[in-house]
Amino acid sequence: MNHIHEECGVFGIYACRRSDPAVLAYYALFALQHRGQESAGIAVNDDGVFRAVKGEGLVGEVFGDEKLRSLGKGNIAVGHVRYATTGAGQSQNIQPLLVNHHKGRMALCHNGNLSNSFELRTKLEENGAIFHTTTDSEVISYMIVQQRLKTGSIENAVSAAMDMIEGAYSLVISSPQKLIAVRDPHGFRPLCYGTTDDGSIVFASESCALDAIGAKLVRDLYPGEMAIVDKNGLRFDTTHCGCCFKRFCVFEYIYFARPDSVIDGASVSLCRRNAGRFLAQEHPVDADIVIGVPDSGLEAAIGYAQESGIPYAIGFTKNKYIARTFIASGQDSRERGVGIKLNPIREVVKDKRVVLIDDSIVRGTTCRKIANLLWQAGAKEIHMRVSAPPFVKPCYYGTDIDSEDVLIANHMGVEDIAREIGVTTLGYLSIGNVRMLTGVDSGFCTACFGGGYPTAVPAHGTKNRFEMKISENPEGE
Amino acid sequence: MNHIHEECGVFGIYACRRSDPAVLAYYALFALQHRGQESAGIAVNDDGVFRAVKGEGLVGEVFGDEKLRSLGKGNIAVGHVRYATTGAGQSQNIQPLLVNHHKGRMALCHNGNLSNSFELRTKLEENGAIFHTTTDSEVISYMIVQQRLKTGSIENAVSAAMDMIEGAYSLVISSPQKLIAVRDPHGFRPLCYGTTDDGSIVFASESCALDAIGAKLVRDLYPGEMAIVDKNGLRFDTTHCGCCFKRFCVFEYIYFARPDSVIDGASVSLCRRNAGRFLAQEHPVDADIVIGVPDSGLEAAIGYAQESGIPYAIGFTKNKYIARTFIASGQDSRERGVGIKLNPIREVVKDKRVVLIDDSIVRGTTCRKIANLLWQAGAKEIHMRVSAPPFVKPCYYGTDIDSEDVLIANHMGVEDIAREIGVTTLGYLSIGNVRMLTGVDSGFCTACFGGGYPTAVPAHGTKNRFEMKISENPEGE
Amino acid sequence: MNHIHEECGVFGIYACRRSDPAVLAYYALFALQHRGQESAGIAVNDDGVFRAVKGEGLVGEVFGDEKLRSLGKGNIAVGHVRYATTGAGQSQNIQPLLVNHHKGRMALCHNGNLSNSFELRTKLEENGAIFHTTTDSEVISYMIVQQRLKTGSIENAVSAAMDMIEGAYSLVISSPQKLIAVRDPHGFRPLCYGTTDDGSIVFASESCALDAIGAKLVRDLYPGEMAIVDKNGLRFDTTHCGCCFKRFCVFEYIYFARPDSVIDGASVSLCRRNAGRFLAQEHPVDADIVIGVPDSGLEAAIGYAQESGIPYAIGFTKNKYIARTFIASGQDSRERGVGIKLNPIREVVKDKRVVLIDDSIVRGTTCRKIANLLWQAGAKEIHMRVSAPPFVKPCYYGTDIDSEDVLIANHMGVEDIAREIGVTTLGYLSIGNVRMLTGVDSGFCTACFGGGYPTAVPAHGTKNRFEMKISENPEGE
Amino acid sequence: MNHIHEECGVFGIYACRRSDPAVLAYYALFALQHRGQESAGIAVNDDGVFRAVKGEGLVGEVFGDEKLRSLGKGNIAVGHVRYATTGAGQSQNIQPLLVNHHKGRMALCHNGNLSNSFELRTKLEENGAIFHTTTDSEVISYMIVQQRLKTGSIENAVSAAMDMIEGAYSLVISSPQKLIAVRDPHGFRPLCYGTTDDGSIVFASESCALDAIGAKLVRDLYPGEMAIVDKNGLRFDTTHCGCCFKRFCVFEYIYFARPDSVIDGASVSLCRRNAGRFLAQEHPVDADIVIGVPDSGLEAAIGYAQESGIPYAIGFTKNKYIARTFIASGQDSRERGVGIKLNPIREVVKDKRVVLIDDSIVRGTTCRKIANLLWQAGAKEIHMRVSAPPFVKPCYYGTDIDSEDVLIANHMGVEDIAREIGVTTLGYLSIGNVRMLTGVDSGFCTACFGGGYPTAVPAHGTKNRFEMKISENPEGE
Repeated sequence: MNHIHEECGVFGIYACRRSDPAVLAYYALFALQHRGQESAGIAVNDDGVFRAVKGEGLVGEVFGDEKLRSLGKGNIAVGHVRYATTGAGQSQNIQPLLVNHHKGRMALCHNGNLSNSFELRTKLEENGAIFHTTTDSEVISYMIVQQRLKTGSIENAVSAAMDMIEGAYSLVISSPQKLIAVRDPHGFRPLCYGTTDDGSIVFASESCALDAIGAKLVRDLYPGEMAIVDKNGLRFDTTHCGCCFKRFCVFEYIYFARPDSVIDGASVSLCRRNAGRFLAQEHPVDADIVIGVPDSGLEAAIGYAQESGIPYAIGFTKNKYIARTFIASGQDSRERGVGIKLNPIREVVKDKRVVLIDDSIVRGTTCRKIANLLWQAGAKEIHMRVSAPPFVKPCYYGTDIDSEDVLIANHMGVEDIAREIGVTTLGYLSIGNVRMLTGVDSGFCTACFGGGYPTAVPAHGTKNRFEMKISENPEGE
Repeated sequence: MNHIHEECGVFGIYACRRSDPAVLAYYALFALQHRGQESAGIAVNDDGVFRAVKGEGLVGEVFGDEKLRSLGKGNIAVGHVRYATTGAGQSQNIQPLLVNHHKGRMALCHNGNLSNSFELRTKLEENGAIFHTTTDSEVISYMIVQQRLKTGSIENAVSAAMDMIEGAYSLVISSPQKLIAVRDPHGFRPLCYGTTDDGSIVFASESCALDAIGAKLVRDLYPGEMAIVDKNGLRFDTTHCGCCFKRFCVFEYIYFARPDSVIDGASVSLCRRNAGRFLAQEHPVDADIVIGVPDSGLEAAIGYAQESGIPYAIGFTKNKYIARTFIASGQDSRERGVGIKLNPIREVVKDKRVVLIDDSIVRGTTCRKIANLLWQAGAKEIHMRVSAPPFVKPCYYGTDIDSEDVLIANHMGVEDIAREIGVTTLGYLSIGNVRMLTGVDSGFCTACFGGGYPTAVPAHGTKNRFEMKISENPEGE
Repeated sequence: MNHIHEECGVFGIYACRRSDPAVLAYYALFALQHRGQESAGIAVNDDGVFRAVKGEGLVGEVFGDEKLRSLGKGNIAVGHVRYATTGAGQSQNIQPLLVNHHKGRMALCHNGNLSNSFELRTKLEENGAIFHTTTDSEVISYMIVQQRLKTGSIENAVSAAMDMIEGAYSLVISSPQKLIAVRDPHGFRPLCYGTTDDGSIVFASESCALDAIGAKLVRDLYPGEMAIVDKNGLRFDTTHCGCCFKRFCVFEYIYFARPDSVIDGASVSLCRRNAGRFLAQEHPVDADIVIGVPDSGLEAAIGYAQESGIPYAIGFTKNKYIARTFIASGQDSRERGVGIKLNPIREVVKDKRVVLIDDSIVRGTTCRKIANLLWQAGAKEIHMRVSAPPFVKPCYYGTDIDSEDVLIANHMGVEDIAREIGVTTLGYLSIGNVRMLTGVDSGFCTACFGGGYPTAVPAHGTKNRFEMKISENPEGE
Repeated sequence: MNHIHEECGVFGIYACRRSDPAVLAYYALFALQHRGQESAGIAVNDDGVFRAVKGEGLVGEVFGDEKLRSLGKGNIAVGHVRYATTGAGQSQNIQPLLVNHHKGRMALCHNGNLSNSFELRTKLEENGAIFHTTTDSEVISYMIVQQRLKTGSIENAVSAAMDMIEGAYSLVISSPQKLIAVRDPHGFRPLCYGTTDDGSIVFASESCALDAIGAKLVRDLYPGEMAIVDKNGLRFDTTHCGCCFKRFCVFEYIYFARPDSVIDGASVSLCRRNAGRFLAQEHPVDADIVIGVPDSGLEAAIGYAQESGIPYAIGFTKNKYIARTFIASGQDSRERGVGIKLNPIREVVKDKRVVLIDDSIVRGTTCRKIANLLWQAGAKEIHMRVSAPPFVKPCYYGTDIDSEDVLIANHMGVEDIAREIGVTTLGYLSIGNVRMLTGVDSGFCTACFGGGYPTAVPAHGTKNRFEMKISENPEGE
């Protein structure tokens, strides 16, 4: 279920010749749509002339044929899908971020969250900078542009900026003549590259975007690695590699990514089935069927079923027209919410002892509703198994897991949670097994499970510090 | 996959008191959305005053909060979702059809296709009738209205009209004071009813719509049965029951209906798993995994896996944002179509002997593309199993299975088809087993499998005879 | 000012060869836009195949380039602009009305109102007819279609229908092979025809539409005349000419029509200046300037100025962006309404004795606001002169002059009205001079001035009798 | 006619208490709509929290009731309407420009064009600034923000910025606690202020916006004057007053402004009539009627008529639905353009010697078409009189009078122009009389008439130098 959200998917292509790179970006963003549904944008770079189309909504809503055509020909395109709280006047935050600067123009796409953006932004403002957006991405742009004045190339500028920014960032950047892709030294967020038959170089948050345009996955960038593409081809800068431990966000495997993607060499589908297997080993139970909460719980349920020998079943029908077109209406809409999206298949669960697999529990409210639907459908027992450890701490690296107050596992034990959400038994995946999700210990960030933050914790927490600032720091005259 | 389309879903509610029946209709149509995505409409009857909102697009697109509110209060609502080829000037075909006549007003929702509408329409026109639409539903309206002049009640008028119309029709009709629901004597299309906690009576094409509004399923109407609700409550007219054999469309179970629906007492989910079990018995094969083509092939695949003992796997990721927002763009869009919607999970199918379950094969082109995706992903063998018998004849009862020419099974044997679509082996479900899909012989229509048409075959085929007529029969002056 | 509204503008073209008649219809409707701003529609007839685009809004909003192209090629087009109270579910009333009948298809455009439609409609319904709309135009369609069954040609059918319908109707009708234009025997509404350089025949409500497409005005149809165009050219049927007195609506000259149009041989611009001249003769006054209320009062003001020798001035600035884009917002919006549209030019009116010319007074509320604006701007005296006699009776022939109750002149004398609206003196044009507006006595309808109705008065008044009926006559079971 | 365009209208209000200032801004922008139809925006400042709505289109299209409500309560609002060439990705240029900086947030609205923005922008970029837009307004924002770091108040920062920027600027700026309005030292563009009954202070480009919200005009700001409003009330800073000669754009009187506005104490309506009087003195002619090209030529025509004694007439009907909804379609659309907007009234001009007054001649193409329409309508002679001197030089101060090449008067004498546009005689207003348009010598800019530029001429001409730069100055690596 939609318990947590990530903020973005990024894409970039350097075509081997002047062509229609926006069309490929469109297909790729369509495949990355699950990483952000609030807005989308594509910028095409035609030998230094940039054209961009951006808008609120799904990729298919922002881009019609006419808008794609208006982007015209070029040899570089970058694209972005974004999840964000929308609001009046927030349209300026839609990416790619296009800025003009002394050495030309730059289009930047960013997935992740900086942990020191407040400090950087304050310093920039003290030197007279103005900001149009409330995003970290504008901070990154400033860092790069100011380094660009001091160095002879965009790649040196990006490298110098990396010395100053901290936190999660997978970037795809187009300068007038180059396409640059960067993954932060902790490797929090994925970023892979591949090639097409005709020799174009492609970067994307996930390999499913490469499949969508017929490109072949080469590999993910290494943590800290920068890739540079220009008319001389592809080269890498590994200056920032190995300077710290890899801290990949395990939720990319458990929930965010598409099961058909391969990240850092591991199949997302396989990792989910592994999670189910581990759960069956850690928390076995005597039951009649195993069902998963669509969509991300399905593969873990198959893994549990295979490991335990309990039959797998499809326990819910999910309304596939829910995305964006459904607006709850009427007084009782809140009550009805989950039931409109998911309907249990009574014939499957009635009089059964059910193992129910979900990917996470945040506040517990949705889980309680799902459990309730199963009880109404006649389930005899519900054994909930969660394919992640309990959330106890907020995330500062690009997901919206919020303050500790709302996290049910922060202030309740497992048995209390089971009682609160109304299930017979409850079992979480252990941190030890999460580490082994890909089969080997892959270097995951475990901050949200209480495993410690890999960077300094932002002084201002997860809230948007600049929207706060605006109202709290009026002109002191 | 979307091989064939049905034309409609219908809904009606008689509320126990003046309330907001449009809100319930909205939720119910949302649950019936899979039965028609081209247009949607709701009419509210407030003690004889009708208000309607209709439009092209998904339920969530046609109805926002404001439009729902504009429908106002009332005690009866009827609603409709429609699949239809859209086109300039076709908006008048959107249902509910509202007509004014001598005894007041009538709102009519229709699922199905008449087999004698051409004859009826011609006769009406010869008597000076004018038609605004090209739908059978307008013919039915005329039949009812003209009978209404001769009889003392709307239910007698509907009953008299049933003597004249022939073919598939599940109707929900609101007269100024009554709500009427009718299922044709062959019972081609489903139509169930239920009750809400506060005593409202509800009709819907499928029980999943009842679940969506918290109503309890009582049963489907019997073939030929009419239900009448007014201020005196619910009563039935069974005059037309038993006059012919039940000929329910088996594709409601195999493909059209939602797996969480129960139709004529049988769970759709169970019928699909039964189809898989039968296939495993009829066409066993030595293989490594069983996968289904989403969404309707998934449960049959689980049935096959359970019967055969071959492990079930999720073989494809389906892009869940595809509905309506995706517009193929660029020259290569046709090639890319299926791949954008479905991506095989390479890790799952690579080097595997795969059993692939789909619900049907019409032209064979989509199946060939899906098989091709699996070959590219490294499958070693592909054993396709189809959870229905071969299509050899067109349908005249409300699906868009077209002329024989396009049906691959009409002019090719199984082995030729297997070669054509590029699979290792191919097996169809037998007609004998299709008959037993619910566990007992349920009285299915097998016309499209070559089992003979239950009514006279329309002289003008499946084409829209009146759009034809318009261009071919210019004024003979 | 927008005191009263008319219901429609009509257009038709029979092109000399297969071409893009929709483009000409588009330009023509654009020129007729002042006759109706609520909806617009065009139907193209391509040798018996009809395509139509209709929608709510201005011509430029309903038709973009794409929609015009979708209408395709053909040799006949008919078009319509409509003023009507909009509402949920009223979209079916948008014209052209397209109906299918026994002899093919028909597209009908209608300007005016029948006075016996209730009787005709009731009779049709008693014979089993169903109605999709609440318009008189659907009644006319039925009358024609039913006559068509009995006669050998569409023109005979129209002629026979004319024997039965009564009231105001200017019709443009396309049958599969012919274009027919008809003006009712009283000639209530205008309808002219012309020719283009390449030999096409064109019909329109006003000659300004002919100018817009470069066509040359020939003349208005005579009251009762029918024009028929087919591949044999243009011919006339005058069977219904001369059967009653001409009763042209004088408000076409005073208010509805565009000043650049010529109707029944008289220039609208000239008639308005004549109205001003007559007013100066009937109601002279000692004043400093003459100003008109835009737009229709301007030419009458010039006439008054020229006849009286008092200087003419532009007294108001009218906000030219008002049409359709302005939505009054906030609590005080009603107060602000008129002031947002019209702003007096203080420098012009300050300390002046002002003669103020408007075209009519209905309820008096708008006039009071306009007078108030002038007082605020410093006018010393306001001498209001109205270029029409007082309204004392409702209109049944296609304008929305409503029940007597709201007409201020129905229950107040001139001096009381002057006091009520707050002007120094008030003078209306006399009926005697109205009759001579074109220079000769032209046969005007004076029903709304108390001059008697030229047809039987509808028993059910001006309200929409069928929307009434729906709620008041529920099924009597 | 629409010969030339200006770029903007600005508005600001400091309400005496927390209220709905967006509603007043909406009405005011609606009254300023003639100054810019491409985009509109409003920002509300609620005690330091800013909310903004901006969009392409007319005020009434950008703002519905819902959007106005979303702006919420506050005590300051600023608003802007803009004329600009639209294009993909230009939406970021829509004003008000909102920026975050070290001392809080700022919303800025700008009318005019800087003549030294290229130099300022280049210097900013050399110091690491990034630009999101291609507007001068962003340059002004940077200048103010950087001065703000060095000074204790926003007004001191604006004053310091004024020392550096050069050219035309009327600014309305909201800081968290203050509303600032500034008119450049040459006073190129208008900017007035007024008060409402309840004590709010209001700024607007023209007084007609004050009328629209019931505010009382006090006066225009003096050239170089700054007005500051905060909780202590209104005060003025006149530091920059008198440092150079007033150079007001005379086209504000002749064409841009609404006739009901009063600018720098002079009525626009009166100035236009004066222009006509002067023309009658300078270029008398023996003729039958005087007509004006709507809308700005009408009052000059009345002035000419009064001075000459030749009768005034309304010679054209202008299609009042033209704004934004009309899209020329089809091959012959270019030919048809002017004729669709303007139709001569044949009865008025036929066989007449016509004096035709227009406000300007730029390229001459539109004038030729208008003259042609009059000839076709039967005019015997056409004596064109232009209420401005010939354009011979481009404008750098906020209008789109382009390069010299396109200006017909730059390379042709009066008689040649008369021949080229096809009129009998042609007369322009002299520079001497233009100077006296308000009755006294008012200090007008006469640069476009060849009278010399009041500032240094921009090295890069009138083109958008930064869009140029983007394509011409690719990264030099």
